[in-house]
Amino acid sequence: MSRHIAVLVTDMVEEIELTDPVKAYKEAGHTVDIISNEAKKTINGKNGDEIQADRGIDEVNANDYDALLVPGGFSPDLLRINPKNSEFAKTFFQDNKPIFSICHGPQFLVNTDQLKGRELTSFVSVRKDLENAGATVKDEEVIVDGNLVTSRTPDDLPAFNRESLKLLEK
Amino acid sequence: MSRHIAVLVTDMVEEIELTDPVKAYKEAGHTVDIISNEAKKTINGKNGDEIQADRGIDEVNANDYDALLVPGGFSPDLLRINPKNSEFAKTFFQDNKPIFSICHGPQFLVNTDQLKGRELTSFVSVRKDLENAGATVKDEEVIVDGNLVTSRTPDDLPAFNRESLKLLEK
Repeated sequence: MSRHIAVLVTDMVEEIELTDPVKAYKEAGHTVDIISNEAKKTINGKNGDEIQADRGIDEVNANDYDALLVPGGFSPDLLRINPKNSEFAKTFFQDNKPIFSICHGPQFLVNTDQLKGRELTSFVSVRKDLENAGATVKDEEVIVDGNLVTSRTPDDLPAFNRESLKLLEK
Repeated sequence: MSRHIAVLVTDMVEEIELTDPVKAYKEAGHTVDIISNEAKKTINGKNGDEIQADRGIDEVNANDYDALLVPGGFSPDLLRINPKNSEFAKTFFQDNKPIFSICHGPQFLVNTDQLKGRELTSFVSVRKDLENAGATVKDEEVIVDGNLVTSRTPDDLPAFNRESLKLLEK
């Protein structure tokens, strides 16, 4: 069954943490919308690549999506400036839909107030914030806790994509 | 009385949040060491400026300094990768020495485990992390809580420097 996946992202994203999972989702027959501050925004990645956004956060409804991807880099920090982004992500927790997040991505998920009691991993620099948000943080290539799939760095992408695709097939 | 001030910083620093306070400290007769991952490191700022480090974190002792500045940008996130940086900063809390931090800077201070019950401000994107660390966060140009001076953005630098210099004169 084809799933419709929201990718929530802005400038300074770690590009490969967006492009590699999106490629895997599309190859498995799923569809993807890249959602950012505004529709048609040109997202300036951390390493100089440009990525075109499909939709703006003001024009999307979480009910139209089956799963959420939050890639890393410094995009997760910048996403926290607009509370609409965390409200959008919070809905996926409340509806128990798959959420995939890698590297600094879980830092953004802190702002949903939904990490208490969850088990996850992330890039090392934001782990203290995840613990302070009530999560249990492990140092493994991928952690699957119910609907939540998390990984640490681009090196973990094969495991991250493998477990994400499994959840999409359920 | 001349004070010796440690500036803890690495790549992606918001340059003006380092250069402007350092200028103010020096004009008031204080001395400054820029401390980074290693001695003589060229720090690559967020806006493309290069800043020369004086000392490496492995060769400094917090006892040799009277105060600490932690500027913002994405440097505070990157400083959290090496626990030696947070151990260094923690000493300033324990010894009740002045600590000045602006924008994303307080994000790094979370890793000292010393923010519980403290009152402070910061850039908007990291406020949830400060609250989760037990701090009370306010939205004001400068907050002075005992030895801790914090501000939100480069626009607050005049107030930030004014209150920092007052503490240095005590």
